[in-house]
Amino acid sequence: MKNANIPRKELVADRQTLMRTFIRPENIAASTTLVKYMEQILFGLHDFLNTHVGITEEVSLKELSERYKDTIICENPEKKLADVITDLVEEIAPHAVNVASPYFIGHMTSAIPFFMVHLKTIVAALNQNVVKLETSKVLSVIEKQVLAKIHRIIYKQNEDFYIEHVQNTHTSLGCFTENGTLANLTALWVARNSTLGPKEGFEGIDKEGIYAAYKAYGIERSVILVSELGHFSLKKAGGVLGIGNRNIISIGLDRACRIDIKSLKEKIDEIQKSPTRTKIIAIVGIAGTTETGTVDPLRQIGEICAENGIHFHVDAAWGGPVLLSEKYKRLLAGIELADSVTIDGHKQFYMPMSSGMVYFKDPCRMDAIIYHANYVNRLGSVDLGIKSLSGSREANSLILYSALKIMGSRGYALLIEHGIETAKSFAEEINNRSGFELVTPPELNILTYRICPAEIKRELSTSPDAQRKILNERLNEINITVQRLQREAGKSFVSRTTLKTYKGRCESIVVLRCVIMNPLTDINILRDILDEQEELYRQNF
Amino acid sequence: MKNANIPRKELVADRQTLMRTFIRPENIAASTTLVKYMEQILFGLHDFLNTHVGITEEVSLKELSERYKDTIICENPEKKLADVITDLVEEIAPHAVNVASPYFIGHMTSAIPFFMVHLKTIVAALNQNVVKLETSKVLSVIEKQVLAKIHRIIYKQNEDFYIEHVQNTHTSLGCFTENGTLANLTALWVARNSTLGPKEGFEGIDKEGIYAAYKAYGIERSVILVSELGHFSLKKAGGVLGIGNRNIISIGLDRACRIDIKSLKEKIDEIQKSPTRTKIIAIVGIAGTTETGTVDPLRQIGEICAENGIHFHVDAAWGGPVLLSEKYKRLLAGIELADSVTIDGHKQFYMPMSSGMVYFKDPCRMDAIIYHANYVNRLGSVDLGIKSLSGSREANSLILYSALKIMGSRGYALLIEHGIETAKSFAEEINNRSGFELVTPPELNILTYRICPAEIKRELSTSPDAQRKILNERLNEINITVQRLQREAGKSFVSRTTLKTYKGRCESIVVLRCVIMNPLTDINILRDILDEQEELYRQNF
Repeated sequence: MKNANIPRKELVADRQTLMRTFIRPENIAASTTLVKYMEQILFGLHDFLNTHVGITEEVSLKELSERYKDTIICENPEKKLADVITDLVEEIAPHAVNVASPYFIGHMTSAIPFFMVHLKTIVAALNQNVVKLETSKVLSVIEKQVLAKIHRIIYKQNEDFYIEHVQNTHTSLGCFTENGTLANLTALWVARNSTLGPKEGFEGIDKEGIYAAYKAYGIERSVILVSELGHFSLKKAGGVLGIGNRNIISIGLDRACRIDIKSLKEKIDEIQKSPTRTKIIAIVGIAGTTETGTVDPLRQIGEICAENGIHFHVDAAWGGPVLLSEKYKRLLAGIELADSVTIDGHKQFYMPMSSGMVYFKDPCRMDAIIYHANYVNRLGSVDLGIKSLSGSREANSLILYSALKIMGSRGYALLIEHGIETAKSFAEEINNRSGFELVTPPELNILTYRICPAEIKRELSTSPDAQRKILNERLNEINITVQRLQREAGKSFVSRTTLKTYKGRCESIVVLRCVIMNPLTDINILRDILDEQEELYRQNF
Repeated sequence: MKNANIPRKELVADRQTLMRTFIRPENIAASTTLVKYMEQILFGLHDFLNTHVGITEEVSLKELSERYKDTIICENPEKKLADVITDLVEEIAPHAVNVASPYFIGHMTSAIPFFMVHLKTIVAALNQNVVKLETSKVLSVIEKQVLAKIHRIIYKQNEDFYIEHVQNTHTSLGCFTENGTLANLTALWVARNSTLGPKEGFEGIDKEGIYAAYKAYGIERSVILVSELGHFSLKKAGGVLGIGNRNIISIGLDRACRIDIKSLKEKIDEIQKSPTRTKIIAIVGIAGTTETGTVDPLRQIGEICAENGIHFHVDAAWGGPVLLSEKYKRLLAGIELADSVTIDGHKQFYMPMSSGMVYFKDPCRMDAIIYHANYVNRLGSVDLGIKSLSGSREANSLILYSALKIMGSRGYALLIEHGIETAKSFAEEINNRSGFELVTPPELNILTYRICPAEIKRELSTSPDAQRKILNERLNEINITVQRLQREAGKSFVSRTTLKTYKGRCESIVVLRCVIMNPLTDINILRDILDEQEELYRQNF
């Protein structure tokens, strides 16, 4: 028996073959076929991963687009499952991006331990929906446990606290989301609703809307403050939540790319004295900025928020798991002051794409976003969909639950430490090469630098602003070109971004950005990448 | 070699074993082990699915909660991968809910074809992030193709239209989301931004916020209209978007549980004449309500929206795939008038949890929600994260892309037709039994009914309102009890909900709700379920 579900010769959709695809086969031959497919998936893809690195341009995007232009859905099956899988492995995977390569250090998407694929398969096979207990049962209970475990490493409340809340159906320590963007949105939604909550004669912003809320509170504007390096999801949240994205106010940076505390205090002062009566809904601290990996002075921001009665949100989408490293968790000191914290699962928890989480210090804070419906979930039940931006959700918490058992906190710590320490060595290497300039040294495991030939470096250090601008433009051009050529060559990949301030100056600086999270990325690989960049510069400039 | 990643005797997190989990093994023994695990997942879970049906109470939720109360993350690995998988299969799966059973007809979560698990595994193994081309390449191109294919069955534009837009990097026919809730939120976000967009002296609601928008447009309120049976995600969207959830206005039903067109017109009229200057942001038509599966008169709503220049959104989370059935697509006639349409992937496209989609008739409409950032995505690129509520997203479109090839539109049509026709037979069966009352006959594949002994039925038909109220309360009690006992017995599962109107009367009616989407659910199984309910009624009342 070669194929379990569709007749060999002619492909016709018929009921019987269709029904069979819903029953896991009882006979050994058919079972073997199904397992064979899995083998093909696990190791067929593996071959791709071994032979293709980076984002090659063997087939241009334009050519690729031409292949996927047909928009008619065929009436009958086009292909048998086996052929579809073969196509996926042979035709599609080679044109995906090998994010698992240790030479792919441009983005926060990386290799994941292979067992993560197994865990995701289990989640898919169980096909539970944690929106309600009736379609998830133990998986909802497990989600609550995992949330409490991570809450505990952030907030370090005592055992009694966790015994009370871990399985409490009336309180919530947080929520799994699909990504950091939705986690940030959830946190700021909660912050908005708490700041402009119900009071005498007003039933709360979520019920009555922003216009009524501003009237009730006698304000004309509400704002959220975050450093210039805030993730763009925060601006998006400002738009979605009706605050207006221009009211997500950027605060300048200190020389270490952290929020400048003096500027922050001045801005708060300015807002409080403003003739436009304005409410500050939240201040966001970043634990691992997307561009530079830097961590804001969380304790100081937390204290400022406490003094002023402002919701303190920490976007630790990137840096959160650093808390698992005894050696480096001090880098996130002060995070326990946060009212809410975002952490991504698919980043430094190495879960498969995509998973985010949001945590709240106060187990009742999520009451500000309760929604329920008779047919789906009931108040006071374990139905997780009551306090969640999303409706139907897969049971992704099972993956983290299992991964924590398989890895231990120490396993995660080893990955984190490897990243931070390798990034440090990489920074030294960059500093040792005369043709490069380290722009933002790594605080966690992200750094930026640029190609900067020694002669230009010398000129930059002595030139007036106008001349610096011309030199920087020249450097920007060089870095844009080399980054592109390296990507197209397909052996390795670093990303690029543009920083707006550098060493306290307002300058538009194109930098190469590296994220060191793959444990197989070592200093030798990083040297290869620099060598290649030097070579590309020599050949092209 | 029994275990590829962790030493046998003592579990200690160490770097070398950890590194190995990132490399797919090169030797045959280790590969075999990995495949064995997959076998265990596919067929170990299968055994669970064969022996456990419904939501049993063998272990109560309370007992279960007790097992998941530990909130400390162990420093060293607690278990080897093999043991974790065994635990998942033997300890956790039996306490999950067997949504795949043909006797589980209570919710919109059901069995999925087994190949869906394979496809999800591929998505996990590739671990692409479609937020940007640099971490997804061909997968972003495929998402655009799949979106165009589904757009085409909704909007039936001509070939030239699709050739122009399928791979156009400047336009968007829609977006994959994580579920219907986020699809509805995206659609209403777009509607809000379009309705209160930029104009002279005003830069648009997303930038300036709702308060400024209302001032600019000279209004005090904005509203969204939907029938009483609108999904609770619409109210939630009202809260999130700052409109206020009380401004999601419920319109009464006609006798067939569809939005009452007369009431809708009156409400529009009332709003337009209201002294509180109000803007209607959208009217939502439902193609398959969650509670009754009924379809609103889409064409009529569409015409009303067109006349009044109002955004027309169709929530076809449930009913959308009916468009693939030549026989029944007429039930959704008028959907092509919608400005936006929500369809869920994990419902009648039988994708694994969770996947939603939102479509827009106008390929430029999503420009109203553009957000981008230098380091992640660039305008005019294929970067799908530019117009998307979410940030990082897995490449779920690959699953639908493949499933359409394996099933053909006819394959999906067979499933849809089976559901609709089986629901019809079930309705007949209910009508033929004197102890039941069919409350909402199936238009698609959802119906509601209640246990209603013949003598009460007679009384109801002749009683005055006060007496009817008492009788209904009695019936509600009976139905709540029988539904619970049946669930606890664990052989089958129907859900229950409360309808607020019945036959034009305002009455609070508890009904049993059935969703027929599993192709293995046939009339014999449905008869068994009714028999069991009759028996439970006899024993307990």
